[in-house]
Amino acid sequence: MGSPDSLEKQPEPAPGSIDFGERLAALRAELSRRGVEGFLVPRADEHQGEYVPTSAQRLAWLTGFGGSAGMAAVLPEKAAVFVDGRYTIQVRNEVDTTLFAPRHVTDEPLSAWLKAELKPGQRLGYDPWLHTEDQVRRLEKSLAAFEAEAVALPDNPLDAVWRDRPAAPRGAIRPHDLRYAGRESADKRADLGKALSDKGVAAAVITLPDSIAWLLNVRGGDVEHSPLPLSFALLHADGGVEWFVEPAKLSEDMARHLGNAVSVEAPDRLGEALDRLGRQGGKVVADPATAARWIFERLRTAGAEIERGEDPCQLPKACKNEVELAGTRAAHRRDGAALSGFLHWLDAAVAGGQPLTEMMVADRLAAFRGASDELSDLSFDTIAGSGPNGAIVHYRVSEESDRALAPGEHFLCDSGGQYDEGTTDVTRTIAIGSPSAEMCERFTLVLKGHIALARARFPEGTTGSQLDSLARYALWQKGLDYDHGTGHGVGSFLNVHEGPQRISKVPNAVALKPGMIVSNEPGYYKTDGYGIRIENLVAVVESPGAAGEERPMLAFETLTLAPIDRRLIHLDLLSPEEIDWVDAYHARVHEAIASQLADEARAWLEQATAPLAAEQNQS
Amino acid sequence: MGSPDSLEKQPEPAPGSIDFGERLAALRAELSRRGVEGFLVPRADEHQGEYVPTSAQRLAWLTGFGGSAGMAAVLPEKAAVFVDGRYTIQVRNEVDTTLFAPRHVTDEPLSAWLKAELKPGQRLGYDPWLHTEDQVRRLEKSLAAFEAEAVALPDNPLDAVWRDRPAAPRGAIRPHDLRYAGRESADKRADLGKALSDKGVAAAVITLPDSIAWLLNVRGGDVEHSPLPLSFALLHADGGVEWFVEPAKLSEDMARHLGNAVSVEAPDRLGEALDRLGRQGGKVVADPATAARWIFERLRTAGAEIERGEDPCQLPKACKNEVELAGTRAAHRRDGAALSGFLHWLDAAVAGGQPLTEMMVADRLAAFRGASDELSDLSFDTIAGSGPNGAIVHYRVSEESDRALAPGEHFLCDSGGQYDEGTTDVTRTIAIGSPSAEMCERFTLVLKGHIALARARFPEGTTGSQLDSLARYALWQKGLDYDHGTGHGVGSFLNVHEGPQRISKVPNAVALKPGMIVSNEPGYYKTDGYGIRIENLVAVVESPGAAGEERPMLAFETLTLAPIDRRLIHLDLLSPEEIDWVDAYHARVHEAIASQLADEARAWLEQATAPLAAEQNQS
Repeated sequence: MGSPDSLEKQPEPAPGSIDFGERLAALRAELSRRGVEGFLVPRADEHQGEYVPTSAQRLAWLTGFGGSAGMAAVLPEKAAVFVDGRYTIQVRNEVDTTLFAPRHVTDEPLSAWLKAELKPGQRLGYDPWLHTEDQVRRLEKSLAAFEAEAVALPDNPLDAVWRDRPAAPRGAIRPHDLRYAGRESADKRADLGKALSDKGVAAAVITLPDSIAWLLNVRGGDVEHSPLPLSFALLHADGGVEWFVEPAKLSEDMARHLGNAVSVEAPDRLGEALDRLGRQGGKVVADPATAARWIFERLRTAGAEIERGEDPCQLPKACKNEVELAGTRAAHRRDGAALSGFLHWLDAAVAGGQPLTEMMVADRLAAFRGASDELSDLSFDTIAGSGPNGAIVHYRVSEESDRALAPGEHFLCDSGGQYDEGTTDVTRTIAIGSPSAEMCERFTLVLKGHIALARARFPEGTTGSQLDSLARYALWQKGLDYDHGTGHGVGSFLNVHEGPQRISKVPNAVALKPGMIVSNEPGYYKTDGYGIRIENLVAVVESPGAAGEERPMLAFETLTLAPIDRRLIHLDLLSPEEIDWVDAYHARVHEAIASQLADEARAWLEQATAPLAAEQNQS
Repeated sequence: MGSPDSLEKQPEPAPGSIDFGERLAALRAELSRRGVEGFLVPRADEHQGEYVPTSAQRLAWLTGFGGSAGMAAVLPEKAAVFVDGRYTIQVRNEVDTTLFAPRHVTDEPLSAWLKAELKPGQRLGYDPWLHTEDQVRRLEKSLAAFEAEAVALPDNPLDAVWRDRPAAPRGAIRPHDLRYAGRESADKRADLGKALSDKGVAAAVITLPDSIAWLLNVRGGDVEHSPLPLSFALLHADGGVEWFVEPAKLSEDMARHLGNAVSVEAPDRLGEALDRLGRQGGKVVADPATAARWIFERLRTAGAEIERGEDPCQLPKACKNEVELAGTRAAHRRDGAALSGFLHWLDAAVAGGQPLTEMMVADRLAAFRGASDELSDLSFDTIAGSGPNGAIVHYRVSEESDRALAPGEHFLCDSGGQYDEGTTDVTRTIAIGSPSAEMCERFTLVLKGHIALARARFPEGTTGSQLDSLARYALWQKGLDYDHGTGHGVGSFLNVHEGPQRISKVPNAVALKPGMIVSNEPGYYKTDGYGIRIENLVAVVESPGAAGEERPMLAFETLTLAPIDRRLIHLDLLSPEEIDWVDAYHARVHEAIASQLADEARAWLEQATAPLAAEQNQS
């Protein structure tokens, strides 16, 4: 397993030794000095990404809460921390609830808490770099309803009391080679610039690091698991870019890679550049859902005409080109071999009665992936949940939670790798010993959903919202369901979660387009029992039509290559078409993976990918 | 077939004898007198319903176009008529295209035409009664972009030149008995009034006649096919209603039926009542998607605080109560017997070599329905399409289009009845002679979609948008699809098309709730070839859970009771579960219908509902 050497991994003191009461008191004193009654501390940084560097983990520093989303609100006498359904248990384990009352962000929203706790005329401070324009608008609206006021603070009062704050990351930024990116940055910039120009727009503000990485064909190392170059950019209608990035981060060959149309400026020069846009008087696109309030305020003050619109890189980045698709196929062949090697090892270890815990197994999986020199990083912290831990959807194994794999249980393992050629994300649910009939039945229902989606063909214009029910139908028929989306977008050696498309119950108007990569991951979770998830990545492709077909159809090409545990399949519940799908998939897995495995593992793979149809005929 | 005696059916002169050029010239002269350059003539009347009385069919009077949606725009030198995809052929048959250029409303929208044809400073008139608030806002916005102006005219200039205009309908309005409505109007009004009151709203403006019919438990006869009382109402937060309706329309027992909390006023008093609301200063709900601009303007002028919100009757009206559901089941038993009698007659007539045309057959079907004294009206003009006419989704047979039913063809028949107990809508596709293997294959694909939806269980909160793909999956797999929604809401002895729920590719945020009635009508249409549609109405019901189920599920109860043509089913394409569904459905049909049929028809039904499973075992 590789990890960017530039990654900031400041060892934090163990939570028990930290005096969070002292931190909270220091923040309150600072707020009082600044003349505001309250302050918001979100988990997000300036870039609103899933991963934030330690230097920006303000919520964790203040409260101890380490989840990937949340917000603390601090008032003179009270404080609360708001988390979503994934984190309602974790927050109670990590946070001193006498300091911060834990609240469910949907059932007990921030706005209701503020309404109850803030008095008319009181002032709630916030850091305009850490909240999007849309978020601040909603906040202002809800405060206005009870005559309190949201106040943008010129600098962050928490930072003023954060002693020993780690330095900002300075991960090296290097070119992302054309043999992986598939398209010159200059061509991408020219296309996007022309689109701006056609709409009478002078420039677009780009605040998402993955958009910048895609646009400039660069990759960085500022956060864990995603090769992001934390920075900002302005894309002009002529295809030129002003890139606001710490120059010391840039590799030596960067100037040549970027060319003359991309200028590099220090991050603190962004404000002046926004002022210039205002003076020049053209329209400026900024994304109110992702760009900081600070950007909008600066543009407004500068007199710019702001066009609220989606980051223009998002959609073209989501539609991978042929080179990126070829790359992801290669990455999946390599990743599938590592995973298959691991699955063989696991089966053998279980059969040999070797005592195993989740952590040991996760480490071993990382070692299998890391055996390849090509691995850049894991694409996220491995989820390795045995028995009841498998039912915790975003489980992350720790010393405290670590659990032995026991016979008759499911072991749910969700993992992935970052390779120059692409990003992988795969979940397998593995039989340890002999799981019960119910467990096999439900595994098969999940598999039926997975197959229905994998086999789906659909006309252009279809969204992931329209397809989501295909993956749930078999579970629904049995009164079961799962409380997460069915599929998220995946980047090309970038974020393992990316938009704008998704497959979900939540309405989403983005049509699936050729080249988009999404996960196909229905699941089932029995609280305190076991968890099931079957996840492959798939690419949207044009589906060649047979005779008699009338409409061009799209379809999914399954990218992930690793056996699905045949021992958990209840054959009687599968239709002949479903059995054919499993057998054809396993034949593909075998063909792509077998030659990469050593003898024993290859023999195991032979068995793990043997046709179900043959088994059915024997019985 | 019954028809309300009050229905205005002014015989129109045959189109050939009308001088539309003269009408257009007269309108232009009138516009010139009023100092506007242009004018819009929509198909809609003040109530934005699907059916409009002859006295309000301004678009048809001006252009000859008789479709159910469209808009003409008249300028001094040019005029155009905008229709949707259903009507692009029909409009060319009905309209003199030298007077009105036909345009596809999506591909060549009104706004683009106006932009090309209107000069800056020119004034486009419109009748504020005939366009909703939302429509006028969009119009104003698009005209502002090129500095033209939308002008609300105080009265309609077309009406001024429409000689021999039929009188407004005065269909009798009668109570809708509690044994059909299931809930007292006073209770409905109290609930809705309380909901207004809880939101701090003083009153709601109700402009949809079906909402008024539901709220007051009355039915009228002002338009074809739907028992609508054209009128307006104000619902107050105390549950009181001011009903603006022609008093002469009301049956004698109406005063007692309505009680003291409902006052009847003449329609022309609505404006004063809106003024009063403004003076009283409370919030007023009006629906910008359905209420006329006139209403909004009057409220604004009166100083009312307008809350833009959905007509509050729409959702509760859609959720039928137990009495309404029992009524619709009874209506479907009766209607299914009529339809089954007809299907038997048709089979026998075809077998006997009797020459049949679409019109003859549609008339015969109406006679079968009309044989029941309970029929109030057909719920829409029967669609009876043989061969290629079946591929025209909204086909309406006429003297010109009438076509013989020929061997080897499909005959598509979409029809329904209005009964006091409920509204039916059913489509059957019938084999005439021996259709081809392709026709049977595609019928079976449509049937698979119908069954997938009919069998679906789904959790609370699921929308029709999420379920739509279930009905298309089998077709999509073969590169086929259909260009209409899968299901529309259906009223209870009210409109055959009602919202707010629908099952469609078009996003819709309304969750399906117990008691909602929707159609399940996937189809397939081969242009110039044949059409297939299989439509049953279904009610959303709570689905009792079996052991091991974890979540409450909803499901569909199929209401329609008539055989699905077994001769068109390609058995090899159905799964055992699908065959079971057909057989169980046919067993229900037989049980409910057989005793209502005469001997010969009953023998035919026996065969038409025989299990497929038996047939499969024989082969």
